[in-house]
Amino acid sequence: MSIQEKSDYGFFDDKNREYVITRPDTPLPWLNYLGQDDYFGLCTNTAGGYTFWKDAKLRRLTRYRYNNVPYDLGGRYLYINDNGSVWNPGWKPVKASDVSYECRHGMGYSRITGEKDGLEVETTYFVPVKENLEIWKVKVTNNSNVRKSPSIFSYQEFAFFDAANDMNNLQRTLSIGEVEVEGNAVYHKTEYRERRDHYTLFASTRDIAGFDTSRDAFVGVHEGLHEAKVPFSGKCTNSKVFGWNPIASLQHDFDLSPGESVEYSYILAYVEQGDEPKFDSPMVMNKSKGKAIIEKWSKPGAVDEAIKTLANTWDDLLNKFQVDTPNEHASRMVNVWNQYQCMATFNMSRSASMFEVGIGRGMGFRDSNQDLLGFIHLVPSKGRRRILDIAATQLSDGTCFHQYQPLTKEGNAEIGGDFYDDHLWLVLSTAAYIKETGDLTILDEPVGYADKEYKIGELGEDGEPRKINAETLLHHLETSISYTMKKRGPNGLPLIGHADWNDCLNLNCFSTEPNESFQLAGDVDGSKAESVQIAGLFLYAAKEFADLYSFMKRDEDAKRIMADYNEMLETVETKAWDGQWYTRAFDAAGNPVGSKDNEEGKIYIESQGWCVLGGAGATGKYAGRAKEALESVHQHLYTKNGIVLQQPAYSTYNLNLGEVTSYPPGVKENAGIFCHNNTWIHLAWCLMGDGDRALEYYLSICPSAKQNQIETYRSEPYVYAQMLAGKDASCFGEAKNSWLTGTAAWTFVSVSQGILGVKPQYDGLKIEPCIPGSWDGFSVQREFRDATYQIKVENPNGVCTGVKKLVVDGNEIPGDVIPAFADKKEHSVVVTLG
Amino acid sequence: MSIQEKSDYGFFDDKNREYVITRPDTPLPWLNYLGQDDYFGLCTNTAGGYTFWKDAKLRRLTRYRYNNVPYDLGGRYLYINDNGSVWNPGWKPVKASDVSYECRHGMGYSRITGEKDGLEVETTYFVPVKENLEIWKVKVTNNSNVRKSPSIFSYQEFAFFDAANDMNNLQRTLSIGEVEVEGNAVYHKTEYRERRDHYTLFASTRDIAGFDTSRDAFVGVHEGLHEAKVPFSGKCTNSKVFGWNPIASLQHDFDLSPGESVEYSYILAYVEQGDEPKFDSPMVMNKSKGKAIIEKWSKPGAVDEAIKTLANTWDDLLNKFQVDTPNEHASRMVNVWNQYQCMATFNMSRSASMFEVGIGRGMGFRDSNQDLLGFIHLVPSKGRRRILDIAATQLSDGTCFHQYQPLTKEGNAEIGGDFYDDHLWLVLSTAAYIKETGDLTILDEPVGYADKEYKIGELGEDGEPRKINAETLLHHLETSISYTMKKRGPNGLPLIGHADWNDCLNLNCFSTEPNESFQLAGDVDGSKAESVQIAGLFLYAAKEFADLYSFMKRDEDAKRIMADYNEMLETVETKAWDGQWYTRAFDAAGNPVGSKDNEEGKIYIESQGWCVLGGAGATGKYAGRAKEALESVHQHLYTKNGIVLQQPAYSTYNLNLGEVTSYPPGVKENAGIFCHNNTWIHLAWCLMGDGDRALEYYLSICPSAKQNQIETYRSEPYVYAQMLAGKDASCFGEAKNSWLTGTAAWTFVSVSQGILGVKPQYDGLKIEPCIPGSWDGFSVQREFRDATYQIKVENPNGVCTGVKKLVVDGNEIPGDVIPAFADKKEHSVVVTLG
Repeated sequence: MSIQEKSDYGFFDDKNREYVITRPDTPLPWLNYLGQDDYFGLCTNTAGGYTFWKDAKLRRLTRYRYNNVPYDLGGRYLYINDNGSVWNPGWKPVKASDVSYECRHGMGYSRITGEKDGLEVETTYFVPVKENLEIWKVKVTNNSNVRKSPSIFSYQEFAFFDAANDMNNLQRTLSIGEVEVEGNAVYHKTEYRERRDHYTLFASTRDIAGFDTSRDAFVGVHEGLHEAKVPFSGKCTNSKVFGWNPIASLQHDFDLSPGESVEYSYILAYVEQGDEPKFDSPMVMNKSKGKAIIEKWSKPGAVDEAIKTLANTWDDLLNKFQVDTPNEHASRMVNVWNQYQCMATFNMSRSASMFEVGIGRGMGFRDSNQDLLGFIHLVPSKGRRRILDIAATQLSDGTCFHQYQPLTKEGNAEIGGDFYDDHLWLVLSTAAYIKETGDLTILDEPVGYADKEYKIGELGEDGEPRKINAETLLHHLETSISYTMKKRGPNGLPLIGHADWNDCLNLNCFSTEPNESFQLAGDVDGSKAESVQIAGLFLYAAKEFADLYSFMKRDEDAKRIMADYNEMLETVETKAWDGQWYTRAFDAAGNPVGSKDNEEGKIYIESQGWCVLGGAGATGKYAGRAKEALESVHQHLYTKNGIVLQQPAYSTYNLNLGEVTSYPPGVKENAGIFCHNNTWIHLAWCLMGDGDRALEYYLSICPSAKQNQIETYRSEPYVYAQMLAGKDASCFGEAKNSWLTGTAAWTFVSVSQGILGVKPQYDGLKIEPCIPGSWDGFSVQREFRDATYQIKVENPNGVCTGVKKLVVDGNEIPGDVIPAFADKKEHSVVVTLG
Repeated sequence: MSIQEKSDYGFFDDKNREYVITRPDTPLPWLNYLGQDDYFGLCTNTAGGYTFWKDAKLRRLTRYRYNNVPYDLGGRYLYINDNGSVWNPGWKPVKASDVSYECRHGMGYSRITGEKDGLEVETTYFVPVKENLEIWKVKVTNNSNVRKSPSIFSYQEFAFFDAANDMNNLQRTLSIGEVEVEGNAVYHKTEYRERRDHYTLFASTRDIAGFDTSRDAFVGVHEGLHEAKVPFSGKCTNSKVFGWNPIASLQHDFDLSPGESVEYSYILAYVEQGDEPKFDSPMVMNKSKGKAIIEKWSKPGAVDEAIKTLANTWDDLLNKFQVDTPNEHASRMVNVWNQYQCMATFNMSRSASMFEVGIGRGMGFRDSNQDLLGFIHLVPSKGRRRILDIAATQLSDGTCFHQYQPLTKEGNAEIGGDFYDDHLWLVLSTAAYIKETGDLTILDEPVGYADKEYKIGELGEDGEPRKINAETLLHHLETSISYTMKKRGPNGLPLIGHADWNDCLNLNCFSTEPNESFQLAGDVDGSKAESVQIAGLFLYAAKEFADLYSFMKRDEDAKRIMADYNEMLETVETKAWDGQWYTRAFDAAGNPVGSKDNEEGKIYIESQGWCVLGGAGATGKYAGRAKEALESVHQHLYTKNGIVLQQPAYSTYNLNLGEVTSYPPGVKENAGIFCHNNTWIHLAWCLMGDGDRALEYYLSICPSAKQNQIETYRSEPYVYAQMLAGKDASCFGEAKNSWLTGTAAWTFVSVSQGILGVKPQYDGLKIEPCIPGSWDGFSVQREFRDATYQIKVENPNGVCTGVKKLVVDGNEIPGDVIPAFADKKEHSVVVTLG
């Protein structure tokens, strides 16, 4: 793949799996994530951001101020003082003129290079695999033809671990900051004297010429970071902070001949003391663990080796699914960025991005189940663990804690349960896991319910303790299906509870007071509001579950579930068909929502997507409705920037609909383009066999395809955004809430399984593409159950869909499913459409 | 009083009741408060800060980022573009060179004047009395001898009312911002479409040349406030924000001849729509109320009139207590700043300062009762209402909600009760109110208990609804006294519960995990830890209560309470005397805390203060102990910067003592100088009759006396700080947590009642000074119960204390109590010591 489209701000380097930013003043700060295991960092294109260990709320290591002025300020800064001229390789915060700049956001690393007056400073920020630390590898090169003696000052500010406390409890926090300095390292030990047995260290592998640990000393009281005192003065003050704001700045002085280069690294590490004695002597901490870390990374080659390991790790991950298609946007997103983003959503859920401040909600039941759909092929074992963790937050009656804390794995009692779609997503994630792995043993795992107590037995293979006599995951799936069948309203459609997938459609909470939760305040007693989306989702989930039972050879169970399916399908068709599309819901008074009878919000996207995906409007006397519903979406909701959530947008607050009507027209759920649900329509068009429309729709929200309108789009062109402003907004097409969105997982599903048609099945890998007729084919490399498949799809007749011939390892086989060989070998597959 | 001591940063202008800051780069941002009723603003010496209506958490009108870099950034900025040269009259954020600068923090206003290149811009920021708005009155003067055509751009950023949501819920808040612009005004209406019926407006009384409402348009995405795009470009862009960050900037262009001046005002108002229709037409708000406000303040003279009214209001308030003493620090603090600070603590409790971010705790039961002691003489009716509100958060068993929300007046269930000193402070505040006013009717007010339900009757005289058949305030006082008598431990001393006044001495919560509350986590079951401070406080409260009963002629009740008093006194003397001082407490295991037997924390300040003030160590076989305890304080705890809380400081975390040992040695409760408790020792020395020591101690923490060491002290020299770093800290003498501290009320008590000896009593105004022997006298003007007393104290014999002669209106009267004439007249009083 070649470097093709280019915006004013940068381009894709597909070969190196990098997005290359060529000017620092991007329309918004453009983010990358560092870290893949427990230690994570956010890193913007100007080296802004912060770091945490496992939990952005409770173990924040460095400090960041969200929505600051400018938006992105504070991070992993290097200040260069080159003969009195002060600048940063990442441009900010000094923003000196005549700094040549490049930022390469890659897989788990960001490399920022600046050059000014012939001095080049390249920094590679990354987290080594399986380490609880990050490395800033620096290379300083004198490209000029004169001797240069620059000084470099690092800068980052420590956070006091609990991010909310760090921000809000200043009358305490400004008094407790403590550090120690020894050798080339600053040890940040706030609260280590008392209940913490962990600390943060910042060290250099090169001997330092000085240090500062006091922000006041380094920056000043009235100074901004762009005019920090020390780098402009050229000399660290060796300040020892006491209270206020601890930082770590290390000074290095260089003397470089023309052409000379120097390399060294900074290490920012989270250290748990464990059983080691906490102190060497009163007030002096035992730093042996920290010193060992510094020693390890100071060894020649250690850092370069870790960079290689990181690259190999990502190569191994991404090579599980690689494609070559006629559309460069689809290819590069699937090959690199979409899978990369799926890793981020799996790791971060919705916790820490440029829009998520890391102290709010934990893991969402609904979110995380969906995130798994795009992640499960990357590290199935992690997916397995996650499914069990999520399932354990379901209650025995079938409802689920809507959120849970990743550290404690306990449900969040504040938000509670009663979102009546939550449980159904568990069926989808479990089915996806088994289809990917063939591992049916997950169904027998003793998971139990959050409202019951169990004895705890020994650790399982995954190192997690096993509950004794607890109900299995399969039991949870049964509970989930039967819960929806039980919880139904006057039309026989599922009750909606606090909300379904659309958190902002609040049919049971009539909130009149500002600051109330739209989802939880003023619950209507005994309300019978119903959700057609849940009905559609139920159809899909029930079908998945029935298929699973069939695969398990439990045909009676499959039949039983399909009876529920058929009952719900008939209900949907008789009660929820609005004439040209599916109604979205029925409110607490029994009136339709998303119907031609409404003045605003006549047609919603979600019920079209899920009813069609669930099999409605496809057969018997209802055949044709599916297509008609999608054509209605096209007519009323589709735009060149994606499908808006509903139309017409709500102009006033509707008490009976809640938060959806609280947004200005054209944003978020009020007729914004909510990319997540767009993908369901993409899949629905694939189901209809229209690959042209599926790809057209996909490209309308594809960030890679937005480079030519980047001043409007504003967000990163390499990851999906939660939302683009809809046609009712003055900023139509502007993207927001990039990175942490269900769009990541679902576009991976819609492109890889929908358009490219590579579908893991219980019994093998199905190939059922639905591509534009103009494509003459494409190829896919897919690892699946311990074998690698080199799949070539040929489209000699210019069709969208339909497999005419399937040849595996030279032998034609009937149908469209490749067997799971599980032989650790590579297999060639040729698929002919027609 | 003259302008005398001066620091590098400013001086007191005592005549104008202003602190004048002469250079902007103060050691820390120096704050003033605007507002006196419901609308409040924080305003620093560089025009930083923010605004809220009633509640800094739920109705924040403008946005502020705490602990930013620099500390103070964002506020009520004016940018001047004078022929391409851009600067701010308050220096920040541009910090142009050669700006001559002055900031006058006065009573309810701040006046900031800058001049550059002959252009002078003076801005007076204030909140008119009883209005829900603030005014920035601007005067632009051309002091040069050439014609000048400057443009002025205002700048402030709107907050979305709920400050926590505004900060943390970016995935929503960055999408919902909405404004309208009409005439010379920006109407900030975020969430007005839905559940809010209020908005914020920002307007000018002068016609505008342009506006901006988008922060991105005005400042930029990558720009800081110091380089905001619009003022440097010289022209507003008339941006209409949609989502992201709404601001209001109004542009004015001027054309000024040499010597010419122009005046106009900006208005920032909080508007509640009330019963008015919300919209004129779909999406267009009904702005009639806002327009009326602009019209009102655009009338010639209206703003100047409001400035006068504000000045008169403060003159009236402060004239209730004015002194002339030989010590300028004591005089100016009592006359101006201490009373002013008492108003702030009454209004703000501990909610919003440079150290309190306004989204944490509400009103504290303990805090607010103490705050009343310094406030009650200013506006007794407000104090009365506050006492009843506080009392209503007591539970029927005697414990109290530790905090309550000022808007809802409901107890904060999260923190709960069981701080076993809380209830006793209610006795002190009630006694202070009755001594000030003589109003015994407050005791009969039906207050009720927070855990009981009552019928609600008609509104009382104060406009608040009355509970029917609810227990009275007197009932609460009885409950409080008996609660302490009941809740006692093995030594017969009061149990401590979660904590007493020293929130950080946690004898019952053995917290081992970071992020746990030190006060609430891991409660020791059935613990018997006891507090000697509560015992001393009980003695004081019981005496107050008995005196009250005596005044009410209920001698039996007085006797009954005094029996409790005597029992507790004997317990203190027999169980809590440690040999040279009073033990601080007994821990959960029954071991002493604050005893010679301890390795660290051998002697604490609080038990010395309260046992002595409660009457311990004064009579019979225990006489002499009080003096000995105070001498021990002098020997072990006193420093030139005040009295440290205990010694030796704790070097390690003690599980059985909790948070007090969590602080680095020398700060906060771990041997920091906690000014609040210093005042109890000042009062105790007065009780001993040693006025020299009382004044010496007072001056050691008096901010006015710190001007000559301001680089160390750092905080505002005009208001008390919660804490100065103790001698164990590397920054010994550095002040923190200024403004919102119980130190305000208690220093007012210790100076006005202790040293100057002007003591409201149930039956009149007692004059019982305890001054340095070197003083030849002092005078006091005191309004008391509808009469004004001009009191002259003469000290011909150079004594500290002892009234020899009392002459009122020319007639000598026996004793030292001036009758309460309540005749609205002025009375002359001459007191002779000797």
